[in-house]
Amino acid sequence: MSVRLVDTLAPTELLADVFSDTAFLAAMLRFEVALARVEARAGVIPEAAAVAIARAAVPDGFDCAAIARVARESGTMVVPFVDALLARVSAIDPAAATFVHWGATSQDVADTALTLCLSRARPILESDHHQLLRTLRSLSDQHANTVMLGRTLMQPAPPITFGLKVAGWFGGVSRAGASVMDALTRGLVVQFGGAAGTLAALGDRGLDVTRELARELELGEPTAPWHAHRDVLAAIVAACGVYCGALGKIARDITLLMQPEVAEASEPGGRSSTMPHKRNPANCSIAIAAAVRVPGMVASFLSGMLHEHERGLGWQGEASTIACVVQSTGAAVAAVRGAVGALRVDPARMRANIAATGDVVFAERAMMALAPAVGRESARQLIAEALDKARTNEQSFASALAAAARAAGAELPRELSDLASPEAYLGVADTLRRRLLGDTE
Amino acid sequence: MSVRLVDTLAPTELLADVFSDTAFLAAMLRFEVALARVEARAGVIPEAAAVAIARAAVPDGFDCAAIARVARESGTMVVPFVDALLARVSAIDPAAATFVHWGATSQDVADTALTLCLSRARPILESDHHQLLRTLRSLSDQHANTVMLGRTLMQPAPPITFGLKVAGWFGGVSRAGASVMDALTRGLVVQFGGAAGTLAALGDRGLDVTRELARELELGEPTAPWHAHRDVLAAIVAACGVYCGALGKIARDITLLMQPEVAEASEPGGRSSTMPHKRNPANCSIAIAAAVRVPGMVASFLSGMLHEHERGLGWQGEASTIACVVQSTGAAVAAVRGAVGALRVDPARMRANIAATGDVVFAERAMMALAPAVGRESARQLIAEALDKARTNEQSFASALAAAARAAGAELPRELSDLASPEAYLGVADTLRRRLLGDTE
Amino acid sequence: MSVRLVDTLAPTELLADVFSDTAFLAAMLRFEVALARVEARAGVIPEAAAVAIARAAVPDGFDCAAIARVARESGTMVVPFVDALLARVSAIDPAAATFVHWGATSQDVADTALTLCLSRARPILESDHHQLLRTLRSLSDQHANTVMLGRTLMQPAPPITFGLKVAGWFGGVSRAGASVMDALTRGLVVQFGGAAGTLAALGDRGLDVTRELARELELGEPTAPWHAHRDVLAAIVAACGVYCGALGKIARDITLLMQPEVAEASEPGGRSSTMPHKRNPANCSIAIAAAVRVPGMVASFLSGMLHEHERGLGWQGEASTIACVVQSTGAAVAAVRGAVGALRVDPARMRANIAATGDVVFAERAMMALAPAVGRESARQLIAEALDKARTNEQSFASALAAAARAAGAELPRELSDLASPEAYLGVADTLRRRLLGDTE
Amino acid sequence: MSVRLVDTLAPTELLADVFSDTAFLAAMLRFEVALARVEARAGVIPEAAAVAIARAAVPDGFDCAAIARVARESGTMVVPFVDALLARVSAIDPAAATFVHWGATSQDVADTALTLCLSRARPILESDHHQLLRTLRSLSDQHANTVMLGRTLMQPAPPITFGLKVAGWFGGVSRAGASVMDALTRGLVVQFGGAAGTLAALGDRGLDVTRELARELELGEPTAPWHAHRDVLAAIVAACGVYCGALGKIARDITLLMQPEVAEASEPGGRSSTMPHKRNPANCSIAIAAAVRVPGMVASFLSGMLHEHERGLGWQGEASTIACVVQSTGAAVAAVRGAVGALRVDPARMRANIAATGDVVFAERAMMALAPAVGRESARQLIAEALDKARTNEQSFASALAAAARAAGAELPRELSDLASPEAYLGVADTLRRRLLGDTE
Repeated sequence: MSVRLVDTLAPTELLADVFSDTAFLAAMLRFEVALARVEARAGVIPEAAAVAIARAAVPDGFDCAAIARVARESGTMVVPFVDALLARVSAIDPAAATFVHWGATSQDVADTALTLCLSRARPILESDHHQLLRTLRSLSDQHANTVMLGRTLMQPAPPITFGLKVAGWFGGVSRAGASVMDALTRGLVVQFGGAAGTLAALGDRGLDVTRELARELELGEPTAPWHAHRDVLAAIVAACGVYCGALGKIARDITLLMQPEVAEASEPGGRSSTMPHKRNPANCSIAIAAAVRVPGMVASFLSGMLHEHERGLGWQGEASTIACVVQSTGAAVAAVRGAVGALRVDPARMRANIAATGDVVFAERAMMALAPAVGRESARQLIAEALDKARTNEQSFASALAAAARAAGAELPRELSDLASPEAYLGVADTLRRRLLGDTE
Repeated sequence: MSVRLVDTLAPTELLADVFSDTAFLAAMLRFEVALARVEARAGVIPEAAAVAIARAAVPDGFDCAAIARVARESGTMVVPFVDALLARVSAIDPAAATFVHWGATSQDVADTALTLCLSRARPILESDHHQLLRTLRSLSDQHANTVMLGRTLMQPAPPITFGLKVAGWFGGVSRAGASVMDALTRGLVVQFGGAAGTLAALGDRGLDVTRELARELELGEPTAPWHAHRDVLAAIVAACGVYCGALGKIARDITLLMQPEVAEASEPGGRSSTMPHKRNPANCSIAIAAAVRVPGMVASFLSGMLHEHERGLGWQGEASTIACVVQSTGAAVAAVRGAVGALRVDPARMRANIAATGDVVFAERAMMALAPAVGRESARQLIAEALDKARTNEQSFASALAAAARAAGAELPRELSDLASPEAYLGVADTLRRRLLGDTE
Repeated sequence: MSVRLVDTLAPTELLADVFSDTAFLAAMLRFEVALARVEARAGVIPEAAAVAIARAAVPDGFDCAAIARVARESGTMVVPFVDALLARVSAIDPAAATFVHWGATSQDVADTALTLCLSRARPILESDHHQLLRTLRSLSDQHANTVMLGRTLMQPAPPITFGLKVAGWFGGVSRAGASVMDALTRGLVVQFGGAAGTLAALGDRGLDVTRELARELELGEPTAPWHAHRDVLAAIVAACGVYCGALGKIARDITLLMQPEVAEASEPGGRSSTMPHKRNPANCSIAIAAAVRVPGMVASFLSGMLHEHERGLGWQGEASTIACVVQSTGAAVAAVRGAVGALRVDPARMRANIAATGDVVFAERAMMALAPAVGRESARQLIAEALDKARTNEQSFASALAAAARAAGAELPRELSDLASPEAYLGVADTLRRRLLGDTE
Repeated sequence: MSVRLVDTLAPTELLADVFSDTAFLAAMLRFEVALARVEARAGVIPEAAAVAIARAAVPDGFDCAAIARVARESGTMVVPFVDALLARVSAIDPAAATFVHWGATSQDVADTALTLCLSRARPILESDHHQLLRTLRSLSDQHANTVMLGRTLMQPAPPITFGLKVAGWFGGVSRAGASVMDALTRGLVVQFGGAAGTLAALGDRGLDVTRELARELELGEPTAPWHAHRDVLAAIVAACGVYCGALGKIARDITLLMQPEVAEASEPGGRSSTMPHKRNPANCSIAIAAAVRVPGMVASFLSGMLHEHERGLGWQGEASTIACVVQSTGAAVAAVRGAVGALRVDPARMRANIAATGDVVFAERAMMALAPAVGRESARQLIAEALDKARTNEQSFASALAAAARAAGAELPRELSDLASPEAYLGVADTLRRRLLGDTE
């Protein structure tokens, strides 16, 4: 278990493990073993060296704490890591020590190890993402005909369906999540360039070794080493930022619906340490915390892209940022999945909240029907009068409007007879809903 | 000319014009005219109303200053804008006034106007982007064999070619620029949803009107209104952030190469107001300023994605951010194009700077050749000794190493006879270069 | 009027004017005139030159558009600005032209001009800030005894007073606004260092000229030129970020209270372009937009602080960021002042919303009274039972608890006889309120 | 040892320990023990309960991993933490369990625990800060007369002294570091408000208990609980951002000076994993990584300040951000201290680099002397001619100018006889240096 108390809600356990010391060390060792194996196959180093390296590269004996401590001296953890590996290989086969880390540079190890961690994170994110999509689709279908208030700028607007609202959520996370998966796929490539990125230490075998190394590690092969070109990583980080925004929007909406004064939908919620009655939107608050945290980290990453020449000064700080972004993203999608999967929806309350507005949200509908009949200005006056009554008198807007029309000697168009029927003013809500879910067109 | 002094270097003139008051007003009017025209064709409003609206919707008479001033009262400029249009239509044809802005909401106008501005920005960005790519490709080809120091963590490393460095720049901006263009293409869609996003005011004609409106405005048709789902805009902003990072990396490298102590490449540069001898990297500093400014604005946009319900509170602030991001991006690509297009390269100095290291950058090469022959530890000692001499004695590393080997009774492997020849230690630099330019594979 | 449509709600008119081309040009001219005057007084340049420069430095004849256009060539607007001034001085007195901009560098002009703009912005911000504080204090006093729900994680909690909530707002903006004013005061210093920051061109008169220049411009005198040390500007920008957060918190709370389902307080609100019934929280949305926009710009500024050597590459982009931050901050404080100043509060609804929870928010109170009497576990069970009834049966928590206690053969402590009286469970709310307003201690 | 591999260079060991699970758990326990003790003294809970709580609150038996895991259910680690404490107290004294966490809310524990961690971090930061200041002062004094190139926009400018450059660094970190210490001092206050922030559960004893609790924990007493008012924390985070910028500026300068083509100053540097000759600026790269990482986290924190009502949704994510910011800041100051403390300076090379410009950096000096004598335009021409020769002919600017003057029949002013003497064109460099160090005025 690798979650720290101070970061408690930032990662899920699964994603904390993916970037744990155990996992990161294992990934670095996997790189060195694969490199040796591939180089041996290519005749670049002796077969025996590869065997010794593989034998030595067992996580158990490594002291991560010591590596991290010494890392500050050289500005990278790879130097003490390679020293430690070297010592262990020497103990097994002194001649093999020569060929440890052969032709590689520190950043080759660190970047590939990071990529290996990301390749473990991807299916975790993907699984939660697809479960969330399935849940949203089913929730939307279930509430295709559940009417509720539209709300714009946090004020009531004409009605929508809850199915459409959920389909909007689906559309956002579906697009943004797909971009994360695409960006990860493009980014899951090996890093291997050697000292200056030309693979000079391998003579003319550099590209063969790269290709085989990628195959051995089940990663993609890059066009070229990307030591100082971080756009592919940046695209992952940025896509996570957009995705967290789309997830956070769902959480924001649920927390608003969950207010007891609104009470239209709620997640089961978590306990309070002192208030027995409390049901806190625990999942939503985790997702919102991620949506608050990640954008700044995207900025950090982007502002650090100006890597100098063939290897920039700041690259060693990137792994921490990427791990944090991916973990927060995973926490957000897991939390939203949790909130949506257990969402309690109250269609009766949704309908009641429309009625509770005194039907004023149908004023636009009245305007669209009246204005062509009596002119914009007369319509505006009749409606304003009816709205005033609806606001103050507890008379509904619909009856106030009918009264105002009568008083003015006008007659309401027949289509306004069901003025306050939510179902009669939904426009193309359901078509849009189905389009968003990908069911049509 | 719409550049402001305080923003001087942020936008180019072309992109300042794209988001100027004139342009934004014209885009809003274009929306209202197209909407009326399409609704008239669909029989939703009278043909005569569309004609009157088109006649009234002439930019000249509108007072942008007054619109901006009144905007604060309603929280959106669209309310005073529609009022102004209404007044002008009424003056032409009072009956037509009823049908101004028919079925639309403020955000439909503002978002579509923004999209229309973006559709004008896209070809400007694209043209500069492609010119930059062409220049980079040609520069890389020209310097395919120009050797120079690789530099990692701002210290000398084994050699590369300038052609490879430029191809790396090409790879970064090529990928990141393509993402900007893709994101813009996906985002150039009409916004049309009406009050609550259901197009209820248009009965069952909403989607027909949307489709025709998109056609009329030469924009794409969205799956559904996107009032509260900003991921597509966010993707544009984020892609610009990554692109600015890739552009800024080029500018960073050029400013480093342009230091007179390095003097390997330089842009012509700008004047100083007080130092007659100065040649400042004017273009590079514009690009770097953009690469510094944009990441934060990406964070702002992402953190604002949690739009509440059907229309969020903060949407009116987004246009400003997007305009600023796109203008900064345009300024960056134009500036880098300027810098690269006029770059003066000094291959002789590049070679001289390798030699000036006393050939110590070939120590890795020596290690790779010596270690298999004499063992890692002996190799390490010989090399350390030679490095010490190269650092202190003004003896080159190559001759110091030969001397050290002789003293130790060892012999240098034959392949080290050209130890300090840059051309002999370039690995697969040129293959990588051609792969990055897309010339092979 | 210098607000642009695309930025509509970002600045107020007053603050748009402060950073307008007219204002910025005037500030640059003011610097050059003051410099010449002071240098003439110090005997550094001829008196006649100062006279000619003052005569030439009339804003009217300058073409800001042309200056901005040419600025891109040299990477700073100061070069074309000085050229234009030079031409005008030459036309008046050719000999005087020699002494234009004497001993100054571009950044001296640009930074001091920015500082002069900031010195005009400060009283505007300060006035709105103090008016806001006065309004908040009076609102808090007025509602010292107005009970309402506390709400934590957007769920109901034990009661507070509206007076305490407003005093909390007061505390936040009072502290954060004071920091902005302090940071501005520290930052309102002249920039004057000449080419390399040593004032070498002025021989030994540099510091005298600096001191007099500061006096002439009514700015502070810096310890030393701060061309590459931007921490004082950064502190202004960061303080604005914190202040916008404190202002945005008020706006966030008001928009939540203004939801019609809550209806406890509301700003008058702005119109919609299509919905006649709408009252949008226009002021609050302006403040929230600023609170979303500014943090990213703070990050941009901070990440750009690594200015190289004696003048960094990115300094020319900072003025734009600072102007935008200060304008957004001014818009936020003006908007919150507007919202709070016109706030309609509904104490009856506040009390009704407490009752509408079925008094479950007093469960903690019951726990604190019962647990010592009957033990934690028994208390927990009685309360859980009563909560279940309150949630499902429309029975209030208080009566359900009494019934549960009776059924269990227990008796409720006497102090629970007024269990659901908000006034009886306010703790030290009013003392805290007065402490926050600074009325006590 | 609490540094993780993936974060290797982000915190120092000391600061990793400050926010470790062990430390955070201990801080939470310290809060609960102190609360019980103070409440017992105040007669709020039985003395025996406080004794039992103190006995149970021993870190050893707590399972941090389990707490972190369960935290996701309630959205805060405090709920499972209190449950665990409760279980242990019950085992010791069942009656005491009633009084665990009496009157406190989750955020009281978490915020105060965070504050306790910050109070341990403060002296660590302060010690490094003051050591850095001492080192900078001494370095500046030592190089008061060491001339070197000024460099603006990364191009040579008239000379400065290295002492002035270091004094500029001193000024920046001195101001920015003092702000961090001030902000921490203001922020080291206890959090204690109970469920809704009114301390209602403590009747009228709330403020007494708060005061004593602060004393017991050696923290300050707040004006009022600050659950939803995060400006004081935000000010800490923002001050760290400014400080990291000031530290990063030093690191940036050193890495530029350390380029072998410049070679004016260098930190000892770290090893490479593959290049035996390498000396990487390890300390500087750690500081730059922090200066890249922290600004985005400042933005995250600021954008999250809009806490809803009496406790916001996102507060649980803040501790992670603050820990990361403070740790990165500590890593930066330790690294810069390391780099500056071991800096090797090469005054001869500094002087040689001035000469290597061909003295063109004195063109401004020539202009200031010639223009009053021969007029601006003639001076400009003579200088331009001499600059051309200096650039192409390997003739120095000074002699080329003398030749040009002779050819034009002019004579150079006597004061230009030492035109290329750096010492003669330093202006008030040393006065500024002493002012920055606080030695004068």
